[in-house]
This record gives sequence, structure tokens and C-alpha cells, in this order.
Amino acid sequence: MQKFLTDHGIGTSLTFGVLGLAAAVILIRMVLAAPAGNSRMEEIAKAVQDGAKAYLHRQLVTISVIAVVLLIAIFWLRDWQTALGFIIGAVCSLAAGYIGMMVAVRANVRTAEGASKSYHTAMRVAFNGGAVTGLLVVALGLLSVGIFFLFIREISGSPRAAVDSLVGLALGSSLISVFARLGGGIYTKAADVGADLVGKIEQNLQEDDPRNPATIADNVGDNVGDCAGMAADVFETYAVSLIGGVLVGYLTSATDSMQPLVYPFLICGISILGALLGILFVNIARIGATPALVGGVAISGIVSSVLLWPLTHTLFPQAVEFAGKAVGAGQLYHCVLVGIGLTFATVIITNYFTSTAHQPVRRLARACETGHATNIIAGISTGHHATVLPVLCIVGSIWYTHSEAGLYGIAIAVVSMLSLSGIIISLDAFGPITDNAGGIAVMSDLDPQVREVTDKLDAVGNTMKAVTKGYAIASAGLAAMVLFGSYVEELKVHLEQDFTFDLMDPRVIIGLFIGGLLPFSFTAYAMDAVGSAAGAVVKEVRRQITAFPGILDGTHTPEYGQCVDIVTKAALRQMILPALLPLIFVIVVAKIPALGPIALGGLLVGTIVTGLFIGIAMTSSGGAWDNAKKYIEDGNHGGKGTIAHRASVTGDTVGDPYKDTAGPAVNPMIKVVNILAILVIPILFR
Amino acid sequence: MQKFLTDHGIGTSLTFGVLGLAAAVILIRMVLAAPAGNSRMEEIAKAVQDGAKAYLHRQLVTISVIAVVLLIAIFWLRDWQTALGFIIGAVCSLAAGYIGMMVAVRANVRTAEGASKSYHTAMRVAFNGGAVTGLLVVALGLLSVGIFFLFIREISGSPRAAVDSLVGLALGSSLISVFARLGGGIYTKAADVGADLVGKIEQNLQEDDPRNPATIADNVGDNVGDCAGMAADVFETYAVSLIGGVLVGYLTSATDSMQPLVYPFLICGISILGALLGILFVNIARIGATPALVGGVAISGIVSSVLLWPLTHTLFPQAVEFAGKAVGAGQLYHCVLVGIGLTFATVIITNYFTSTAHQPVRRLARACETGHATNIIAGISTGHHATVLPVLCIVGSIWYTHSEAGLYGIAIAVVSMLSLSGIIISLDAFGPITDNAGGIAVMSDLDPQVREVTDKLDAVGNTMKAVTKGYAIASAGLAAMVLFGSYVEELKVHLEQDFTFDLMDPRVIIGLFIGGLLPFSFTAYAMDAVGSAAGAVVKEVRRQITAFPGILDGTHTPEYGQCVDIVTKAALRQMILPALLPLIFVIVVAKIPALGPIALGGLLVGTIVTGLFIGIAMTSSGGAWDNAKKYIEDGNHGGKGTIAHRASVTGDTVGDPYKDTAGPAVNPMIKVVNILAILVIPILFR
Repeated sequence: MQKFLTDHGIGTSLTFGVLGLAAAVILIRMVLAAPAGNSRMEEIAKAVQDGAKAYLHRQLVTISVIAVVLLIAIFWLRDWQTALGFIIGAVCSLAAGYIGMMVAVRANVRTAEGASKSYHTAMRVAFNGGAVTGLLVVALGLLSVGIFFLFIREISGSPRAAVDSLVGLALGSSLISVFARLGGGIYTKAADVGADLVGKIEQNLQEDDPRNPATIADNVGDNVGDCAGMAADVFETYAVSLIGGVLVGYLTSATDSMQPLVYPFLICGISILGALLGILFVNIARIGATPALVGGVAISGIVSSVLLWPLTHTLFPQAVEFAGKAVGAGQLYHCVLVGIGLTFATVIITNYFTSTAHQPVRRLARACETGHATNIIAGISTGHHATVLPVLCIVGSIWYTHSEAGLYGIAIAVVSMLSLSGIIISLDAFGPITDNAGGIAVMSDLDPQVREVTDKLDAVGNTMKAVTKGYAIASAGLAAMVLFGSYVEELKVHLEQDFTFDLMDPRVIIGLFIGGLLPFSFTAYAMDAVGSAAGAVVKEVRRQITAFPGILDGTHTPEYGQCVDIVTKAALRQMILPALLPLIFVIVVAKIPALGPIALGGLLVGTIVTGLFIGIAMTSSGGAWDNAKKYIEDGNHGGKGTIAHRASVTGDTVGDPYKDTAGPAVNPMIKVVNILAILVIPILFR
Repeated sequence: MQKFLTDHGIGTSLTFGVLGLAAAVILIRMVLAAPAGNSRMEEIAKAVQDGAKAYLHRQLVTISVIAVVLLIAIFWLRDWQTALGFIIGAVCSLAAGYIGMMVAVRANVRTAEGASKSYHTAMRVAFNGGAVTGLLVVALGLLSVGIFFLFIREISGSPRAAVDSLVGLALGSSLISVFARLGGGIYTKAADVGADLVGKIEQNLQEDDPRNPATIADNVGDNVGDCAGMAADVFETYAVSLIGGVLVGYLTSATDSMQPLVYPFLICGISILGALLGILFVNIARIGATPALVGGVAISGIVSSVLLWPLTHTLFPQAVEFAGKAVGAGQLYHCVLVGIGLTFATVIITNYFTSTAHQPVRRLARACETGHATNIIAGISTGHHATVLPVLCIVGSIWYTHSEAGLYGIAIAVVSMLSLSGIIISLDAFGPITDNAGGIAVMSDLDPQVREVTDKLDAVGNTMKAVTKGYAIASAGLAAMVLFGSYVEELKVHLEQDFTFDLMDPRVIIGLFIGGLLPFSFTAYAMDAVGSAAGAVVKEVRRQITAFPGILDGTHTPEYGQCVDIVTKAALRQMILPALLPLIFVIVVAKIPALGPIALGGLLVGTIVTGLFIGIAMTSSGGAWDNAKKYIEDGNHGGKGTIAHRASVTGDTVGDPYKDTAGPAVNPMIKVVNILAILVIPILFR
């Protein structure tokens, strides 16, 4: 059995990947089989679908230009295997986002229709629509990495060549995901902020009022940002963690056996099974949305941890040596548990800081009573507070897993943490679907009761979205640490000498500072992009309302397409500079002779440190502001129409680019930096 | 000559310190000799003076309790010399703030009176009032460190003992300055925000309207925060940089000669001369405020750099070995120039990001047109953008000075940068005096023309304040790097072994993350404190206005004392936890056996990295918001009363705790952490 697993473990894990893909197809059929509502609903859904498709196509063109340049460079400077990996990573990352989104834009109208029947029907359609993305991410991630690895090993006959080319796949997926997160994030929030600023604040229109010319753009944004962008992002974290595990396993283990390389694949395979059972549970449980979704996650986690115990002990009957340290099955299994535990810890902590049920959000709501400014001050401080516990948990995990199994232990914890993404992403994608369903319900004049159901689901979706962001950034930080370790190990192998990154070496300090500024500069550009694009939307909406007064009394249909066009162009134009920032800094620092590989190492860690803090702080502040507004809209502190409510809207608007553009885009960014560094070792350091 | 300088250089430099002190006394007499205005003005000034004095006395009591506990601990665990140093550092830091503030509260009424005569009279009184603080800071800093050093060396007969005890002086001044910055910062901004929120936004009162019950508290705040707090802060940076230079000179030089220890003292001494000439220039120049002040700084910088050339070459006729590297006078002089150049670079960069004359502030003003939220988003992104260039300048300085003269080169650059504080602080303290003068002018019903003059000066003061904050945080970051170097060198000496702080060592990474979270948590508490104290002021002002309707029509005098009392208590209560945060983290990390000195080293660097970014980002955002409001109030984008103006007020209010509480308090905090680490080496690592 041990021999079978070692020799055919990757192949075995791929069957789970195929299973996941098959389940995704079944779910797509189930979603499409649900009734799609009346013709007015279909028409609106069609407008959203078209806008989303049009955006993604143009995004594809823009990214392709940059990707082709990079592809040629990689092919020229490294080899065709790495270049092939790059293409596969990029295509799969795009596919996960694209398919997931296309299902989501069909699930939303069906969720609205389902809501006219019952709460449970709506919830199931929305959840299954999201689960498609969740399953696609993990199945495509596992399959692409696994098949590509086996293929290169087969034709080159060397695991070394296969491991090396995986870096190309990692870069392909990371690069796409930076663009998708940024472009989608700018799109969704520029449309959202622009629509709110004129619609809600100036004209007193409701959310999703069809008289608002930016309302279709807003709904398109939910899909291209929260669905496609998020899916590409998590696909990337998933694939990169798996690759990180394989890299570290290969580079630090003393054995020639395949065990350390197979283990990460098996963890991913097993947890697809866990995700499927979790999804099944949500579909058959006849309970409220929150307990059903939380139950689904719990089941996935429990299934994975139970099954991984015998598997770990079978694969590692004897201890294997990693970086001079004998590591047994028990120790590795502990690392798996730490990863799963860290998932639950980050979810619970983020929930504490962003849910209406707890102190932080209630404090924000109170701060709204004294106006815009006090709400903003309190929100920013909430974000800063929210960094402490997750970072301490991460630090504790690093300490424990490293003492159990060295760098490989950290890598295994990351893989097991990410292995839960199948179910976690299902929750995340649930949010935008219910959000859109509500929009369609309002725009097609459905019974107000329908909107009530979708609003209830939307509130659950909002919390889930906030919570999964904490998970995403924590796992990205930890995955980046593993990549940094791989960078150092690669450096040793390639330059055949030991490197020390001593804090007393000024190059390390210089690297730390330069790396530290990357997330600051990157998020600044991202926020600027949202601000300026939203400003353009505001001007366009004001123009239409002035030019066609009939819009406001409903006698004239607004030109929705204009707003869609403005945000599409703005998002694509403004995602390029920040996305290229990591590339430029890595190459410049590596190329300056006085800096070189040592400073580059410092840069990697500097980016991870400030990136982790900024990422957690921004997503937490944003989530808390969003829910403080919801809390006030539920009738607290005077409810809608009060000064407190207006202040809470300001907070929510500031929070939009915080939590949906700049904050989450930091995740792929810190990994791009690290992967690029690994990639340039044989090119720049000879 | 070389022998004289080596043997008596410290004594010689102290004569310059005495000269600076004498000049401060003359300036105090000049300020007090200026006419103090009519009885109404005197009465208001008296109220402000009393409030400020009362606050400082209560702050003293609170700090004393904590300081005595620490003093006993230091005495018990280390020695009486370090304990004595602690007392001296604490007392001088307090004295610099206290005397400077007491002069400022007398200068403000005289500035108002001067403004009724001429622009230049007002400017000179305000500037000289500020220059008292500037001179006190540098003179007291130089004298306390120098005399204490000579005294301990004399009685112990060993420079080693004297150098060791200096750490006590550094801790004393740092600790006081954290409390003073935080307490004063919370006070000033809670009063300011509270006064604005009800006064300006709810009741449409002007700034400094005597009908606003919080107006005296607001003016008191300018003095206890921007004068006393700032003076304590810069005293600390100055003293700590000098001590850092001495420490590094002693620890890294191979010579037994006193040259490396004497050099920092001489740099400080010479630049007191430079500061005096700069102050003289401002007093006799018959030009506008901005060119006069900028000219004063330029003269100081030029005088220092010209005089230090012969001095450096005289003191170091031959190269001296530092950490195995021969360093000559030319190289050391280059480091001096880098420090002075860095001062000008940070001033120019901060000015670009915070002055109304440049793009960033104008962009914020434009963003105000689309409302509160877009202004906030743009302001936060401005802060993030503003980190890039200063950090690159710092990084360049580290690289160059380290390659010239190792760690000692960095230390010398810091000392020469800080040696300019005499003149720079004069500019900084100028702001609150003119601000207060304007308040007194309005409250005592002086001719509106007077307010016009003070407003013009206030605008100059605002830019100077913003600009000196960039200088303060950049120098604090660099000084902290030197302290980290001292920590490592001390560790080597004390534990008699070499230490490596390798980024591949998980303890270093853990330290970096824990250190990184300190500035986030610290600033979160600081902002919370302002938010909640401001909320309490809002409630009190609302209560008074409701209870005594006569207040609004001017027939009933508000109970100013109530608001003063509320903010005093709130500031003192809420400064304690954040101020103790560094202490707790340093001791816990040092005490955990699995972490220890290596993780503590990581912690120090982590705190510096995120602290530097947060400090620059917060002070820049705040300065930009403040001036965007001023730009709009000058009639741009519709001027006062428009939506844009209301949005700019929100930005300014958010910016208040950013730039005057949380941001600047990070400076002493990152140094406290580093000094504590040096102090605990012989106590915790045996």
C-alpha cells in the first residue's frame, strides 16, 4: 500500500480531481435546470451576463498582450517547459473564473425565482451556483498541477525538471489572478461607489433601482469582481500552495523517494472528497442558511482530518529526513491539523470583527451617531486591531509546524489549509449571487417578499464573504512564506553556496524596506483607480439624469451601456501599472549589483510582512463598515434616513475599495513577487 | 589640536550647549517683553495657560507612578547609574516640553497683539516663541547626555560603564515622550474633533467661537499636544540619536581612543551654532514668513556642513577601524552630508504631498466634489503613495553610509540629521502659537484684520508642521535602525558569542511579524482614544447647549472647564495601555525560551519596518486632508458651505488623529522598543 501510494499517489489524487470536476458539471446542470423566471427577469439577467462577458473578453485581450510578452521572455530565458507551465497556469486560472462566473450569472436569476417559492429553494440554487466555482477551483488546481507534473516528469525523466517547470505554472496563475483581482476589483467597486454616490446620496434612489443608469454596471461588477476575480485569486493560492509544497518537499528532503512530493497531492485529493460531502450536507440540510453553511465547512474539515490520519501513516511508515531532521507521520499529521485549525481560527476571528453580532461592528454603528469622521476613524482602528490575533495565530502555526517538520511542515500546513478552499469558496461565491438575485428582484418588480428573502440570504452572504477574506489573506501570507523558503533553497542549489539573510546585513534591511513599500504603493494605485473610475461614473449618471429628466420618473430607460463601458475601460487601463509593479521591483533589485539575491530575499519577506497586515486591516475594516451600515439599516441607532445612517453609508463606501479591490489584491501580489524571484534565479544570478 | 579635541571634545561641545541654553533664555525674555494685549486677551490666554498647566501636572502624576515602578525595576535589576540616567532622561524630556509650552502659551497672546501692529511683528514673536522650544531641545539634549556621560566616566573610571548607563537616559526620555506624545495627542485631537463636530457641523459656529463650550479645551490641546508632546518627542529622538552614535562608536570601533565617541557630540555642538545663526536670520530678514523660515533652515544646514569639514578632518587625521573596516575623515564627512541631505529630501517630499501648491492636495480637493467617501479614499491612497520616496531615500542613505563607514556611518548620518532639530523644531512650534493667536483674536473680538494676519501665518505654520513630521518619522526610523545595530553588538559583547538573524530562522520571521503588529495595534488604540474622548466632548457640548440655550446667543458663558476636565481624564486614562504595549511585548518575547534574543531582534526590525510606513502614511494623509480643506476654504471648488467643503471637513477630522496622535506617536514607540531590548539584555539573557 505504501509503495502504491508513493508510486501512484499523484495519479490517485487526480481521480479525486476528476470526481470534483464531474460534480461541478452535475451542479451546473442542476442550476440550469432550475426555473429562470419571467421574461423581464431573463432580460435583466441577460444584460448583466452580456456586460460581464464583454468585460471578461476585453480583459482577456489586455492581459494576453502582457502575457504573450512574458511568455516569450520565459521561453527565451528559461525553457519551453516553464513556458508551457505558464500557459497552463494562466488558462486554468482564467477558466476557473470564467466558468464560475458564467454559472453565477445564470444562478442569480434562478435564485430570484427560487426566492418567490421558498427560502430554502433560493438558498440551494445560490449555494450550488457558488459551489460550482468552489469545485472548479480545487479540481482544476489539482488536475493542472498534477497532470503537468506527471507529463514533464515523463518526457524529461527527471523529477527535478518537473519541479522546476512548476514555477512557470505558478507564475501564470498568479499573474492572471493579480490582473483579475485588480481589474475585477476596480470594476465592481467603481460601479458600486459611482452608483451609490449619485443614486443613494444625491437622488435618494434605492439600491438596484432600474432608474439608476449605473445599476447594470453595478450588478455586472459583482460578477466580474466577486466571482471571476475571486475565483482566479483562490485558484492561484491553491495551485501555488500545492506547488510550494512540492517544491519544498523536493528541495529539503534527503530522500530520493517520491513521498514528500506525493503527500501534498493526496491532501488535496482527499479534501475534494470532504468538500463534496460538505456540499451534499448543505443541499439536504433543512436548517437556516448560516448553520447549513457553517455545518458544511465543519463537515469538510472533519472528513479531511479523519481520512488524512491513516493516509499519512500509510505513506510515511518510517521517518523521512528534511533539512537534517527526521520527520515522522505523527509530526506531519500535526501540521495538517494546524492548517485546518488555522482555517477555523481565521474564520472565527474575522467573523468577530466583521459580524453585526459582536462588539467591533456595534462600536462602529455607535460611532456613526457622531458623524462621518468618527465612523471612519473607528473603522480604520478596527482594521488595525483585527490584525493582531490572526498574525499571532499565523506566528504560532509557523513556530509549531517548523519545530515539527521544518519548512516542509509549514508547507504542509498551508496545503491543508488551502485544501479547504473547495467548500470555503462555495460560501464566498454565494454572496454575489444572492446580491444579484436581489437586484433582479427589484428591477423586475417582483413581490417585495422576494427581495426580503434575497436580502436575508445576502446578509448571510456578506458575512461569509468577509470571513473568507480573512482566510484568503492568512493563507496567502503563509503560502508566500513557503515560497520565500523555496527561493532560498533554490538559490542554494543553483548558485551552489549557502546564503545567510542576516538582519545585520544592510542589503537585507534595504530589501525589507523596499519590499515593505510594495503593498503600500500597490494598494494606493488600486484605491486611486476606484476613486477616479467612480468619479467618471458619477459624472456620467449626473449627465444622463440632466439630459433625460424622464429617467427619474421611469418614463425613459437609462443608457446602461454607457456606464458599463466607462468602468470597463477604466478598470482595464488602471489595473496595468499596479500589476506590473512587483515585476519591476523584483527585476531592478535583482539587477543592481550592490543588492542582488540577498536584498531580493529581504524584499520578499518585507512584502509579506506589510502585505499581510495591510491585507487583513483593509478587508476587516471594509467588512466591519459594510455590516455597521446593515446594522443601522436594521433599525438600530435610528435606522435609515438619520445622520447615523448617512455616516454609515460613507463608511461602507470607503470600505468598498478597501475590502473588494485593494485588500484582496494584495494576496496574489505578495505571491507574484515571491514566484518571480524564484523564476529569475537562473536568469539573473549566474 | 587633534589631541585637544579627542580629550576635551565633549567638554567643548557642552559649551555650545550652554550657549544654546543662554540664547533660549534671551529669547524667553524677548517674548515676555512683547506687549501682551488687552485684559480680555489676557483673560483668555490665562484660561488656556491654566488648562495646559493643569493637564501637564496631572499627566506628570500619572507618568510618575509608572516611571517610579520602572525606576525601581531598573535600579534593582541593573545598577544605580542606569537608574540615574533614567531619571535625568525623563526629567529633561519633561522639562523641554514644559518650558517650551509655558513660553508658547505666553507667546500666543503676544502674537495676537503683534498681529494688530504688523505681519512681521507677529511672525517674529511666534517664531521666537517656537525657537525657545527648538533651542531647549538641542541644548538640554546635548548637555544632559554629555554631562551624564562625563560624570559616570569620571566616577567609574571606565567609558564602558558610562556608555552602558546612557541606555537608561535613552529609556527615560523615550518613555516620557511616548506618554507625552500619546497623552498630548489624544488630548489635542479629542478636543479639536469634539469641538468641530458639534460646533462647526451641527451648530455652524466658526473655529474658536467663544460660544463653543469646547473651545478652550481645543486651544489648550494645541499647546499640550503640538508643543509639549512634540518637544518631548524630538528631545527624545535627539538624545537617543546622540546616544546611539556614542554606543555604536564604542561598540564597533577597534580603537581605544575617544574619537568615535567625541565625534557625535561635536556634530551636535556645531549645529547649535548653525541653529543660532538660522534663528538670527529669521529675526532680521524682512521677507515673507515662508522664505524667511526656509532660509533659516538652509543657513543652519550650510553652516553645519561647512564647519564640520575642518572639524572632521582635524579629529580623524588617520583612518580608524570600525568593525574591521578602515574609515577616514572623508568617509565620515560624507555620512554627515547624507544626514543633512536626507533632512532636506524628506522636507521637500513631505511638502510635495501636503502643500496646497502641488498635485496630491489638489487631487484631494477635487475628490471632495463627489463627497465624503471619495475624499477619504483619495486621502488614504495619498498617504500610501507618500511612503515610497522617503523610504527609497532612507534606503539609499543606509546603503551609502553603510558602505562608507559601516553601522557607525549610519549612526553619524542620523546624528547629523537630528543635529538640525534646533531650527526644525522652531518651525514646528511656530504653528500652534499662530493657531492659538488666531483663537485669542476671535475670542477677544479683535479687529478681523488681526485674524487675517494670524490666519496667513497659521497656513504657513500648518505646512511647516506637516513637513517637520516627515522629518521626525524618517529620522526616528533611521535612529531605530542604529539602536537595533547597538542591540546586536551589545548581545555579542554580553553573551560572548556571535548572533545571526537569518530570515530563514523561524524565530526571526516570528519576531518580524510580532514586531510588525505593534505599530498597528498601537495606532489602533490611539485612534480609539481620540474617537471615544471626542464622543464624550460632543455629548458634553450638546448637553450644555441644551441646558443653557443662552450659550448660543452669547448671553450665557459656557462651562469651558467641564470640557477641559473630560479630555484631561480621557487622555490620561487612555494613553496608558498603548504606551505599555511595547514594554509587554518586548518582555514576553524575550522571556519565551523558544523565542529569546533572536526573535527579539526580528521584533525590533519588524516594528521599525511597519512603524516607518504607518508613521509616514498617517502623517502625510492627515497633512494632505488638512490642506485640502484649507484649499477649498480659499474659495476653490465652490469654497465654504458647499458639499465639497463639508467633505473636506470630514477628511480633516479623520486626519486629526492620523497626523497628530497616532502617526507621530509611532516615532517614540519604535525607539522605546529598541531601547528596552538593549536594556533587558543583561537582565533576561544570562
